[in-house]
Order: sequence, then structure tokens, then C-alpha cells
Amino acid sequence: MSIVVRNTPRLAADLVDSFAKYGVATIHEAQGRKGLMAPYMRPVLQGVRVSGSAVTAEVAPGDNWMIHVAIEQCKPGDILVVAPTSDCDMGYFGDLLAGSMMALKVRALVIAAGVRDVADLREMKFPVWSKFISAQGTVKETLCNVNTPIVCAGALVHPGDVIVADDDGVVVVARKEAQTVLAASKAREDNEAEKRERLNKGELGLDLYKMRERLKEKGIKYVDYSGD
Amino acid sequence: MSIVVRNTPRLAADLVDSFAKYGVATIHEAQGRKGLMAPYMRPVLQGVRVSGSAVTAEVAPGDNWMIHVAIEQCKPGDILVVAPTSDCDMGYFGDLLAGSMMALKVRALVIAAGVRDVADLREMKFPVWSKFISAQGTVKETLCNVNTPIVCAGALVHPGDVIVADDDGVVVVARKEAQTVLAASKAREDNEAEKRERLNKGELGLDLYKMRERLKEKGIKYVDYSGD
Amino acid sequence: MSIVVRNTPRLAADLVDSFAKYGVATIHEAQGRKGLMAPYMRPVLQGVRVSGSAVTAEVAPGDNWMIHVAIEQCKPGDILVVAPTSDCDMGYFGDLLAGSMMALKVRALVIAAGVRDVADLREMKFPVWSKFISAQGTVKETLCNVNTPIVCAGALVHPGDVIVADDDGVVVVARKEAQTVLAASKAREDNEAEKRERLNKGELGLDLYKMRERLKEKGIKYVDYSGD
Amino acid sequence: MSIVVRNTPRLAADLVDSFAKYGVATIHEAQGRKGLMAPYMRPVLQGVRVSGSAVTAEVAPGDNWMIHVAIEQCKPGDILVVAPTSDCDMGYFGDLLAGSMMALKVRALVIAAGVRDVADLREMKFPVWSKFISAQGTVKETLCNVNTPIVCAGALVHPGDVIVADDDGVVVVARKEAQTVLAASKAREDNEAEKRERLNKGELGLDLYKMRERLKEKGIKYVDYSGD
Amino acid sequence: MSIVVRNTPRLAADLVDSFAKYGVATIHEAQGRKGLMAPYMRPVLQGVRVSGSAVTAEVAPGDNWMIHVAIEQCKPGDILVVAPTSDCDMGYFGDLLAGSMMALKVRALVIAAGVRDVADLREMKFPVWSKFISAQGTVKETLCNVNTPIVCAGALVHPGDVIVADDDGVVVVARKEAQTVLAASKAREDNEAEKRERLNKGELGLDLYKMRERLKEKGIKYVDYSGD
Amino acid sequence: MSIVVRNTPRLAADLVDSFAKYGVATIHEAQGRKGLMAPYMRPVLQGVRVSGSAVTAEVAPGDNWMIHVAIEQCKPGDILVVAPTSDCDMGYFGDLLAGSMMALKVRALVIAAGVRDVADLREMKFPVWSKFISAQGTVKETLCNVNTPIVCAGALVHPGDVIVADDDGVVVVARKEAQTVLAASKAREDNEAEKRERLNKGELGLDLYKMRERLKEKGIKYVDYSGD
Repeated sequence: MSIVVRNTPRLAADLVDSFAKYGVATIHEAQGRKGLMAPYMRPVLQGVRVSGSAVTAEVAPGDNWMIHVAIEQCKPGDILVVAPTSDCDMGYFGDLLAGSMMALKVRALVIAAGVRDVADLREMKFPVWSKFISAQGTVKETLCNVNTPIVCAGALVHPGDVIVADDDGVVVVARKEAQTVLAASKAREDNEAEKRERLNKGELGLDLYKMRERLKEKGIKYVDYSGD
Repeated sequence: MSIVVRNTPRLAADLVDSFAKYGVATIHEAQGRKGLMAPYMRPVLQGVRVSGSAVTAEVAPGDNWMIHVAIEQCKPGDILVVAPTSDCDMGYFGDLLAGSMMALKVRALVIAAGVRDVADLREMKFPVWSKFISAQGTVKETLCNVNTPIVCAGALVHPGDVIVADDDGVVVVARKEAQTVLAASKAREDNEAEKRERLNKGELGLDLYKMRERLKEKGIKYVDYSGD
Repeated sequence: MSIVVRNTPRLAADLVDSFAKYGVATIHEAQGRKGLMAPYMRPVLQGVRVSGSAVTAEVAPGDNWMIHVAIEQCKPGDILVVAPTSDCDMGYFGDLLAGSMMALKVRALVIAAGVRDVADLREMKFPVWSKFISAQGTVKETLCNVNTPIVCAGALVHPGDVIVADDDGVVVVARKEAQTVLAASKAREDNEAEKRERLNKGELGLDLYKMRERLKEKGIKYVDYSGD
Repeated sequence: MSIVVRNTPRLAADLVDSFAKYGVATIHEAQGRKGLMAPYMRPVLQGVRVSGSAVTAEVAPGDNWMIHVAIEQCKPGDILVVAPTSDCDMGYFGDLLAGSMMALKVRALVIAAGVRDVADLREMKFPVWSKFISAQGTVKETLCNVNTPIVCAGALVHPGDVIVADDDGVVVVARKEAQTVLAASKAREDNEAEKRERLNKGELGLDLYKMRERLKEKGIKYVDYSGD
Repeated sequence: MSIVVRNTPRLAADLVDSFAKYGVATIHEAQGRKGLMAPYMRPVLQGVRVSGSAVTAEVAPGDNWMIHVAIEQCKPGDILVVAPTSDCDMGYFGDLLAGSMMALKVRALVIAAGVRDVADLREMKFPVWSKFISAQGTVKETLCNVNTPIVCAGALVHPGDVIVADDDGVVVVARKEAQTVLAASKAREDNEAEKRERLNKGELGLDLYKMRERLKEKGIKYVDYSGD
Repeated sequence: MSIVVRNTPRLAADLVDSFAKYGVATIHEAQGRKGLMAPYMRPVLQGVRVSGSAVTAEVAPGDNWMIHVAIEQCKPGDILVVAPTSDCDMGYFGDLLAGSMMALKVRALVIAAGVRDVADLREMKFPVWSKFISAQGTVKETLCNVNTPIVCAGALVHPGDVIVADDDGVVVVARKEAQTVLAASKAREDNEAEKRERLNKGELGLDLYKMRERLKEKGIKYVDYSGD
């Protein structure tokens, strides 16, 4: 009952690439606060932002066989997204597979489990977001699905969705909403530019966002300190 | 029932600033091992030590409204200390608010919840200690108190207390004890200087601290290895 | 009932040193996937790999007295391995003890508890793997054993075992198996070199490891995407 | 941007009810090991098994407003499934809402957050599976969606899916697969009956499942104890 | 530097006792949602509710000496509240101390650490709320304070505060606010009685709480299911 | 490289059985506070105490094959102790295997992983101590060792060691120390009987254990409450 889906749809490369201009936090807001993976997904390599088309893989606990199968389904510009069928901290992925993925121009790995050879991964500059770091290797015994919809770190991912990842975490943009979300991200960023400038000059958020009236309505009370 | 206390007391700037000479571990020891926040409070920006006067804010889970309110109560040299009313990993604070606080010469943020835009925070060199990192934004709907005593990461903080934070964590020094604790920190540091020198030369802690007698009394037994 | 075992056996220095050529992940595989500490053991100083002979110490929760006792039993090239008798996040170890250990040419500390002064430890370049970072200091009241077998972070450690640690974690090699494990590690590394080269050229793991036949036997099914 | 979907489809009552004959573990196996919520979902009331049609609700952290909205969409025999948009341990649900749901013949609550009044819930015998127990109440300020697909405790839930819950946890059966999964569950249970009988008589699993040959192939080695 | 404060103030017994009529959740709401301990505080003995005057004790990690000291400060009707100076899962308290406290008519123990002999505690019906259960015993070596203000499980507790605990958790009522909070709790309970009755008859929360108008203002949209 | 050790030694049945008279906490103290499993090991069936001879098994994550192999090595009066080679919350064991073990008069299962069918296990009264409860089943693909020394929940277990488990947790007594530990447990229990009686009569621990002098030496200071 293991299925590998081939020829999954992808968006145009320039659309997918454009997402890397915007932070994960911005995109998450822009699409109505959905699609964010849990905050335990942390970058092995700090200071990097990537976007790409999702190839999805389920793996059995302690078994990385399907990563090999999934890599064959990856195309340049893709991001491989891997979820274990139950929580597992083992090191599913290391420098050999990273070399393989770099050769195939896959952009990153997002895995809700463990990875290893992290010193090498940092040196190779292959970006990985993972839940754990562990030297413990895996077996190759159990089949699972590739390129079916999966839940990864609490977020639903379909093959071909846009994945964006940076130091703040990982967000999933549904393929059919990508154009709209990109536009909304740009609008949000533009809108923030002016706010940033005013805040950087010392204007208070209370004034910039015109919050004083609403605070009063809600019943805020200012008092002077009366202790000793 | 939301109260914002204004004009809270602060210690003289040079007294507050002097704390940054001493590590969090030293100050915690010097004041009798109290006032330390839980070790899950980690620096976003490594390698920095700051001290400042506390402005305190409670926030509702998933709601950062009171941070805006609290910033207005901050003065140059302050550190904003934020505690959610129940555990929440969302990103309450990002680059916009960091810019605002830097404009106001607030020194740092200490928050027992999540922050975002951490790549920007690192680039801006605005020091933040937080419990989580998360791209997930918050709403502005619920009022809480500002500048009332709060429990943050297990430590009680009053407005005007001295906050010191470095890579080891965050410690709170009660305002009225600051002078005493500073002196005790200096004494402790001076005392350690000689010990450090002797240890660095290879003298054993057992001898330096004259532990051998007490170990014997307690019943320590030295035996030779007898396995294979 | 506290025992300190002296003159524990150690392997020849060049044998112990040779382990640092191989990663923790490689050695763990090479010895049949045993002896790995739990993945919560993380390096304070990133990017370092060390090997050394184990000196073991138990400590009571919140009490670092036995670290002082254990340091006397350390020789140049050793690694001190410390396990608390129950889980404790306090800072058992800081810059003073690090200076002492460096003076004695002890190579590293591995401790399934907390450490402090981590900014200093990084500057001193003394390698430490710990479960926690905490400014909270300890007392010196309770005796435990030194150089008896201990369970540290889930792994059994005897004095004189070889400890290898890097960014992936910490592995224990039994003293009597060291020669065999070293050879197996080298064999594994040599074997991986060719694979690495082929993967880096774009050959798929599926082909390199000849997995296609076995996948078919297990019932894998390739289908084309049929959604919209 | 808050949507409440009305008139979601449901399966025939007797089909949904039939699932309660089978344990969560059996159904999970029978549908190919998918759809299980994370093991932190625990019953407030032990020893109960229920099945029902899912009504789904998202809630903001610390905000139970949408539970009120969702209850209106529930029909007799339904199970309300609630997921917070970020992790939250607060008590979203207590005896008042339980009374309301019992009046409407809703069968159970499954919530990946906290509940309160648990002594009352036990006395009322209203079944609840939750991630946390907490006395802390919530506000009613923020809208979310009702009866859209949600990820709850790691499992994807659509309105109208069959939910089955017992002391082992909570499983989701996709509406369109329910008939097949029910048949497979029955087959599995029937098949286990004979095995259970033979095992209860003392026959070994090794023989019952004919494992000896395959163990030998995989390289198992039996040796006699040789220690002291 | 260990202080034991004697003759701490207590409220009148009937005032303290009256709190046990109201659940922890009700009291927490009634006092403006403050003073709740973290939800990891769980009852060893289910189905019990108690109220009492707080005697407070700090303990060192793995060291229960101060519990003995604190018991001497307890009077009939008190509840002993214990917080370790750093997180510790050891068993600080068992059947001997429970017998001692029952003899002195102390009502309960609240401890943000571990306890043991839980089968005995259940049989003796001595109520305990703890963070952990562990067989691991403690030493008696290190002094801490008794009857000074402490932070226990995230809540600030002064000696003489009213403690209320049930299956939902533990709440602290400040001594000087007790009269007001009790009245507010009663008012809240009375107010809920009518609501309970109406909800139990099938009236919707949406109508009872008149939420429909405000939901519309916030932008809720009802749509019919359109999938298959 | 999978080894199954047969004919491991066991102590005389009456010696092993005698341990069930004493609580885990008592035995742990009596043997010098070692051999205790971590406190996350919790009983599925509350209120039971068992002792038995250990049969040990390692299992791969998500793979319960070796439990079948290990059961063949069990004799009446044994307790099966299972440790996964890396942390895994899956349900390795359910009612079928429990029936099998009961038929063979195996006394209990101790497993540092998950179990399922817990409602059945409670009804069958088969005692299990586990780290997790989960409906998620396992595969049978990977060999590990049976009856070799293992680390289970932080404790080292050899085949033939005495295992004692109750509501407080699980303790391991080394086979060769069993006689001594049993005697020490009895002595400890006898010694406690008198203390219990005195404490139950209201005598303070401070007096019973003659602590007052030592407290004074350590510097305890009694002061009267001086607040308002």
C-alpha cells in the first residue's frame, strides 16, 4: 500500500522564487495566519532563507528508505518535506544525501525528525530545517507514501505547494493560492516600510496604530506609582 | 481592570549600568541564589551582556497589545520584561517593535514567550531573551497590566528592579538590594580572580578549597581499579 | 558509601586520538549502533570534535562536589563524563573549573546536566557537551562515586572507555572494543568516499544502493498525479 | 475572514455508530495506519469509547469563542473537534458547555488544548479527550473558521469524518473511506479472535505468526548465557 | 542566610474554609484571572477539593530538609506550599511525612517537585498536588527559607494566602483580597446557575450570551458546504 | 548481529517474590539510591506492586519483533523489560501479547516506549509500566538483542536482575546484591515502623530525627513575622 506519485504539478519557477524575498512571518500573516509549521522546526544553518516547490515524503520511525525514493521525484528548485509517521528523533539524513540533493539542485530539506552530520551540512551550506539533531542512523525496511498530502510539524503539505523557510520557521503556501499570497506579502511589506521608518524615528506604536481610543474604550487605567 | 502604572522608580543610571560588568551567574550567587529566570530563557543574539531597569508587562496568550502600551512607559536604559498570562509560543515581537525600542534607547527585551524576525533582530543587534522563536503573529484584543509586579519565567519582577542578562540567562535584582548586590558581586569577582589564577596554574580545587578533610569526614574511600 | 576508583585503565594515546578522525555518526554505525548518548546532549562550542578516555563521575542534584574530586583523577587526554543521580538543570560547571581542566590537559567535559559561564567557555575554547545551560550554581554537600560505571544520557560509560563528541552528539566506545571499532570506522569511511563521489555527481541512491528490486518486492507502486 | 460552513455532510448514523465496536488501535491498523492523533490526547473520563461525525473548529490561543459558534453546527451524534491555531494549555471548555453539548446530544469533545471543571465532566459522564487540564479560562475576542478542514493533534480532520476515541487515543476515518475501513476493522477483529485464543492457551507468537524462518534469514543467533 | 518566619498571619478559619465551596476555575475567574499555578500541578488523589492557609517553604534540589522545618510552622487548617530552588523531579515527600502532617491537621501539600509512596498517600487520603511522582529520595543538607514569599509553579505565594486546589489545579488568593474574592466567587457561581439551567435545556450559548450581533460586526460569514 | 541469550540465571523464586513486600522507594533507598528508572515510567494499572526476574529486550523504533522473541525466553515469575534503541512513543504491546504473557505466567511488562489496548490491559489486570500510551502499531522488520544488558529509562538492567515496580516507579536490583538489598529493605521498613508511629502521634520530625542542633550549626534563624 505504498504509493509514489509522479509528475506532481509545480508553479512557474519565478513565482516560487519570488517568495524568498519575504520572511516567513510576513507570508504567514499575508495568507491569513495559516500553514505555519510548529516552532520546534529549527534551521541547522542559520541566516538563510529559501523558497521552493514541495515534494512530500512520509517515513516510518527510524527508517529513511523513502527519502531515497523521494529524491528521485525531486526537480531543481524543489524542497523535500519529510514527516515521520510517529515522532522520532533519529538522524534520517546526513552529508551523503545532502550531496545527492545538491547535485540534483534540490534547494533544502524540511524534516519533522532528526538529521546528522550537521557540521558537514553547515560547511556544504545545504539548508535543513529539522526537529532534532542526532547521530543515530536509520534502517531501510518499511515503505510509505511519496507525494501524497502529509501533515508535517502540524501543517498540511501537498506536493507542489510553495515552502518558505528562514530563521523564524517554515511556512506552507497552497499552490493555488500562491499568486494571491505573494501579492499580499508584497503589499504587507510595502505597508510595513513606512511604519518601520516612523517607528525608527521614535514615534510610538500607540500613535502610529491609533490605539489610544480603543484602549480607553476597553477600560485601560493609567495611575501613578505609589509604592516606596 | 487593566492598570498601567506610570512614573515607576528607577535607580541611578551608573548603578544600573555597573551590573553589566558582572555575569548573571556571579550576580545570582552574590545575592544569595535568588531571582534567576528559568533556563529556557535563551538569547536570540549570542555573546551580549546587558543590564537595565525593568519595565514590566503582562500579555494575554497570542496578544501583544500591551507591549505597545508598555513601550510608552520605557525610558532610555530600560529593559522591557514581558510575561504571558499562560504559556504561549507565538511570536509577540519582531523587527518593527525592535526598531521602535532602539529609537527610544530601550536596551533589551526579556520575554517568556516567542519572538520573530530573529534574523533581523540579530542584524539590528537588538538583544532579546525569549522562551521561543516563532513566525506566528499575535492579535491586539485583550488588556493586561503594565508595571505591576509579574512572575516571568519563574522569577518575580517589580518595575524598577535591575535586570541583567547574558548567555547564561537572566537574573532580577530587587531595586532596594541593588547597591548591596553590586558590592557583593564585585567582592565575589575579586575573590575569584586569585582562585582562577591558581587553578589555571594547575592547582587542584581539592587543595585550593581545602576539601580533603571534609571529604574524609563524610566517608569518601579511595580504592584502586581492580577490573580487567 | 562513596568510592573513588584510582588508576583506572586507559588505552594508548594514539589509539584514543585516532577516533577524532571519524564523526560520531560514523563510529556509532561502525560499532553496531550502540553507545550513543541522547540527542539532548548539545555542544556549547560548535564545530569541534574531540576524543578521549573517560573519567566518570556521579553528582547529586544541585551539587558539584564530585567534579572537584573527579578532576584529580583525570590525566592529559581524558574527557570527564558526569551524570547527575536525578535530572537537574543547574549550572554545575563554569569558567573556573574549565581553567582547571585546561591546565591539566583534560580535553572536554560531557555532562548530562547544566553548565554556566558559556560565553567564557566559548572564548576559552574548552569543549563542553551538556543537557542544559543555566547560571544557577551548586552546593558541595553530598558524596557520590567517581570512576564507577555510570549511565550518562542513556549510555553506559565505564572509566577508560573512549568518548567521541562532535556537533552530532556524544558516543561511547567500550575500551575493549576500541581497536575493532576504529578499524570498522575507517572501513565505513573509506566505503562512503566512493559513494559520496557518485552521489555528488548526481547518481541516485536508488541506483547506487540497488534498491529498485527490493522496493518492487515490498509492493511500491508508482502512479501519475491525477489531481487538479 | 472567518467562515462557518453549514450543512456539512454526515454518514448514516448506524454506519458511524458501528465504529464504536472497534478499538482505536484496531481501526488505525485497519485503515493502513493513518489518521491517528498524537498520543498526548488523553481521556478526561477513563474507560469510555465513542464514535461520531466530526464538526471542526479552530480557536485562537486563549479564546474559546468559536466553540460557541461550532456548537450550533452540531447535530445529535456528532463529536466536536477543536484545534488551537497555536499551542495553548488554557481551559477552553468546562461544565457549562458540557451541559450544553449534552442537551444537544453531541457525543464528545476532542480538543488539542486544555479543559477545566474535570471533576464535573467526570460526574456528568461527558467524554472529553484533551491535551491539557487547566483551570485557566479564555476570552471571546477573535474569530476563526468552523467546519473547514483542520489539523488537530497532527491529524487532518474534515467535517463529517468519523472520529473514534477511547483510552488509547483518537483516530480520524475519512468520510468516503468509512465503509471500507469498517469492514477492514471487522475483518481484523475476527482474525485476531482466533489468534487471541491460541496465545491465551500458551502458544508462542513465534509459532503462531511463523516467524522462526524469517528470524533465521535475518541472522538471529541463539547463544547460551556465559556470565557468572 | 536561612530564615524561618514564625507567627505569620492567617485569616479566620470560616473565611478560609468557605473557599472550598467554589472550584479553582471559578475562584481564578473571580479574582481577575491571576494566581493560578501552572497546569503541570496534578492531584495524586483525584476528586478532592481543599482550601487552607499557606505555609511556604523553599527546598534545595534533591533536599527535603526544610519540609521538616516548615511542618513545625503549620497549624490545623494550613496547606504547606513547597517550591524547589531549581526544577527537580525527586520524591521529596512520602507516607511518613503525610502521617506527620495529618496528625497536625495540616490539610494538604502543594509541591512543585516530586512525591513518593503515592499508593499510601491515596489510601491515607492525604491530598497532594505535585509536579512529579518519583520513588527517588532526598538528602537533608541545605537550608532554605520558610514562610517567605515564594514563586511556586509560576504563582507568587505569601504565607497566609488562601490556597484552593482541586482536579483542575491550584490557585492562590492573596490574604488581603480573600473577602472580596470569596464574594466574587459566590456571585459568579450564582450567576452561572441560571445559565447552566438554560444551557442544559438546549438553549445555545450564542443566544444566551447574545453573541450573534458581535460576531456579525467582527465579520463572521456563514456559507453552505459545497464539497462532495 | 542480533543475539538472543538463553538460560540466563535467575534467583530463587522465594527470594525474588519477597521483594514485593517492600515499596520501590524503600528498596531504592536500601540499595544506596541506585537502579531507579526515570519517573516517566508510569503504571497502566494503578495500585499494583510486582517483583520478578528480568528478561531484557532491545527493540528498534516502531518495531516490536523482538518482544515476540523475548517472550519465548520468559519463565513463570519473570518480568519482561524492553528498551527502544531510540525514543519512540508507539504502541509496541497490546492485549494479544498480554494474553500470551499471562498464559506463560510472566508477571509484568516494563517498557520505555508506548503500549496500547490499555482498557483491555486494565480489565485483564496485566501490570504494565510504560513511558507512553499510544494506539499506533509497530512493524516486525529489524532484529535487536535479547537478554543482553540494556539501559532502560536510564537504569542498567542485566537479565536475571530483580525488577520491582509499583505506583512510585520501577527499580532494578542487581542479581548478586539481591540478598543484601532485601535484608536492608527489611531493616529500613522495620526502622520506619517506629518512626511512623511517633509521627502519627504528632511528634515533629525535627525532634524525632534530632535535627535542631544541626540546623542551628548550619545557621538557621527564626524570626517573627513583621509584615502587615
